[in-house]
Amino acid sequence: MNALKERIQRDGKNLGNGILKVDSFINHQVDPELMDACGREFARLFANLGATRVLTAEISGIAPALATALHLKLPVVYARKTKPITMPDQVYLTVAPSHTKGRMVELIVSPEYLAKGERVLIIDDFLASGATILGLVRLARAAGAEVVGIGALIEKSFEGGRSMLQGMGLPVESLVCLSSMEDGQMLFCD
Amino acid sequence: MNALKERIQRDGKNLGNGILKVDSFINHQVDPELMDACGREFARLFANLGATRVLTAEISGIAPALATALHLKLPVVYARKTKPITMPDQVYLTVAPSHTKGRMVELIVSPEYLAKGERVLIIDDFLASGATILGLVRLARAAGAEVVGIGALIEKSFEGGRSMLQGMGLPVESLVCLSSMEDGQMLFCD
Repeated sequence: MNALKERIQRDGKNLGNGILKVDSFINHQVDPELMDACGREFARLFANLGATRVLTAEISGIAPALATALHLKLPVVYARKTKPITMPDQVYLTVAPSHTKGRMVELIVSPEYLAKGERVLIIDDFLASGATILGLVRLARAAGAEVVGIGALIEKSFEGGRSMLQGMGLPVESLVCLSSMEDGQMLFCD
Repeated sequence: MNALKERIQRDGKNLGNGILKVDSFINHQVDPELMDACGREFARLFANLGATRVLTAEISGIAPALATALHLKLPVVYARKTKPITMPDQVYLTVAPSHTKGRMVELIVSPEYLAKGERVLIIDDFLASGATILGLVRLARAAGAEVVGIGALIEKSFEGGRSMLQGMGLPVESLVCLSSMEDGQMLFCD
C-alpha cells in the first residue's frame, strides 16, 4: 500500500537489530487518516472470508484492528496483557515473546467475546517472527473459533513469520513488506 | 448521547464498588461503529477549540480518542504505561492511580509528539475521580502545551472528577453521565 510505504520511507526509523520505529504514525502517535486507509485496504483484501470478528493484541494492534473492523462492520476484540478486574476468572490465556519488550507477555481473552464457530480475522501492526500472531491463533483455536485470515500493516519478511503462518494453512496479507533492515537501510520486498 | 446510553443500559454491568463493566463494547471488545459515532459527537462538541492534537492514555482511551481524532483530522497521541525501547531516554512521565488496577501507573509521552504551543484535547473512556485525566493534563503542561478541552465517554459524577477539572478552568464534556451506582443500580444524571 503506497501511502503506508511512503510514510515509512519518510518517517520510519531503522533503530538497528530489526527494530523499526514507527511511533510517529502507528504506535504512540497515530495518524488516524492513514489508519483509516489501512483499515479500508484490509477490509477490501479480506472482504470475502465471512469473518465474524476481528482479533488483535493490545496495544499497538488496536488502531489498525479498529479501523479494519469499522470498514468490515464487525466487532473487534483486543487480547489484554494483564487481566482487568472486570474479566471473569476463567479466561483464554497464552504467552508469547515480545520483541520490543524483550520478555514473555501474556495474551488474555475473555470467553465472553470469543466463541466456538466464530470466524476470526487477526490484524496486527507488525508481522515479524509471527510469535504474537501465533499466540492469537492459539487463543482463537482454544475458543473453538476458526482463524480465516491474518493481516499486518508491516511485514519483516526476513524474520520468517509469513512462512510459519502460511505453513499452517493461514492466508497472510501485509500492506508493506520489508526484506532487509541491515546496515541501517530499509529494503522493501517489491 | 443516546446510542451510548442505551448500550450501557443494555450491556453495561454494575460490578459494585463503582465499577462499570463495559468490556463488551468499549474495552476488550469494541463496537467500532459506536466508537465512530462517539468520535463524531466529540468532534462536534469540540469543533471550535482550535485543538492541534488529541491526547489519551493507553489502553481503553485509544478507541474513543482515535475515533475523535479521525473526525477532527488531528494526530492522536496515547500516553504509554511502560516505556518502549523505541522511545528516547528523555520523556515526560507522571504517575496516576488506576482505579481498575488498584495501584499507581506511569503515564509516559515522548517529547517528540507533545510540544510547546500545542492545543491539546484530552479524550478518555471514563471520567471518575479524574486522576488519570489530571495526569494527562500534567504531561501536556510539562511539555508547554495548553489543554483546551476534556472529553470522556462515561462520567461517574459521584466521584467528583468534573468539579476538580472545571475548578482548573478546563472545559469538560461527557457523552453519558452516571449519578449513582449504589445498590447495583445505574442512575443517569439527566
